[in-house]
Amino acid sequence: MERKKYVIVMAAGSGTRMGGDMPKQFLELDGKAILRRSIEVFLAACPDVTVVTVLQEPFVGIWKNYCLTSGFHCPQVIAKGGITRFHSVRNALAKIPDGAVVAVHDGVRPLVTPELVRRMFVECEAVPALVPVVPCVDTMKVLRKENAGDGAAASLCEVEGARVDRELLYAAQTPQMFHSEVLREAYSQAYDMAFTDDASVVSAHGKKLSFTIGERFNIKITSPDDLVLAEAVVRMRKG
Amino acid sequence: MERKKYVIVMAAGSGTRMGGDMPKQFLELDGKAILRRSIEVFLAACPDVTVVTVLQEPFVGIWKNYCLTSGFHCPQVIAKGGITRFHSVRNALAKIPDGAVVAVHDGVRPLVTPELVRRMFVECEAVPALVPVVPCVDTMKVLRKENAGDGAAASLCEVEGARVDRELLYAAQTPQMFHSEVLREAYSQAYDMAFTDDASVVSAHGKKLSFTIGERFNIKITSPDDLVLAEAVVRMRKG
Repeated sequence: MERKKYVIVMAAGSGTRMGGDMPKQFLELDGKAILRRSIEVFLAACPDVTVVTVLQEPFVGIWKNYCLTSGFHCPQVIAKGGITRFHSVRNALAKIPDGAVVAVHDGVRPLVTPELVRRMFVECEAVPALVPVVPCVDTMKVLRKENAGDGAAASLCEVEGARVDRELLYAAQTPQMFHSEVLREAYSQAYDMAFTDDASVVSAHGKKLSFTIGERFNIKITSPDDLVLAEAVVRMRKG
Repeated sequence: MERKKYVIVMAAGSGTRMGGDMPKQFLELDGKAILRRSIEVFLAACPDVTVVTVLQEPFVGIWKNYCLTSGFHCPQVIAKGGITRFHSVRNALAKIPDGAVVAVHDGVRPLVTPELVRRMFVECEAVPALVPVVPCVDTMKVLRKENAGDGAAASLCEVEGARVDRELLYAAQTPQMFHSEVLREAYSQAYDMAFTDDASVVSAHGKKLSFTIGERFNIKITSPDDLVLAEAVVRMRKG
């Protein structure tokens, strides 16, 4: 029997680096909130998916109001954001039963396609943990910030002997998908600063990860430049 | 006294992965060859720069003809492409005197701005080697291809214990700039497969690299998706 489908949409960031006073997931991309677009991809891919949206307390009302006034009538379970991403995912997992496939997706990755989401839900029936990655095309440098002295700006220096082989490097994207009981067990570990994504939590718990090729345009919108790029991609897809 | 300025524009790739039968540097981006755009940025930044274009033999005539018929009247020194990028740069360096600042730029990075080029030429007066980098925003995975057996497709697996710290990772871009005598000396080394960019050649030769922050949109066009993204950026900059 097929596993029930869930998506945890991470929108608990409260950074306002983008300018304005709203966190970036609430900013508009071609007339729609970025977070709404991220959720809509999952609804388009799998109409039967249950959406769990993770928000910091002060933004729950704002988001509910946005959904109401903008006519976005998707039933959503709301989970509360924690002090780190790790704690937020743990809160959301409390709303999800064992025996499901759960996708964890960044609320600021609205450009993922329904095709990738649908394909991954199918592939994840057979494996406990599935991560979309894209090969790294750039030469990577391992650098540390070094302060030249009193009041001087930090400058970047090579870390000696720390060469990384580009051929082996892949950038991880979201959605990352998991059998819900596997993800829950991994999240029962103590928090570690090295947990940068869900895959790293599951891997640290000793479970084998499977990988699938992600999408070039599935970017994370974290700067005003990213938003400009995303607008261009949306316009291009329109025609 | 200020150093004389040179740019080596690398256009010796002959890959036609993009479709069609022309290497990607000759494809058009918003009505102009990508290679032409890459050169024009340097001319806009520093009208006194000397351009050394590196081409494989069979494409020299095609490029000269394109310049003529499209009205691109930039004086260029042509250097011949070698069997690897390393050998191509070495050929181009033979055309450049000591005592100069030489920029080495990918012919398929047409979106770098004149502002970055101008700023780097100034900064490189004071340091022997200058590399533009952007911080890595993604979680990176170290993966190897593993073949499951007879005729099975390769699948990706984590390399054990090979975690990379995202905080320390930066993607290197071009133009990378060097005092010409420093670059020439570095390129007198024997070729090594680990040389993925000019900075790695100079670093392997024991010279300290300096780093400066590059640009989000200074992408390398290597796939049809990249070209689409680049078109979007050009259109956005126009208006």
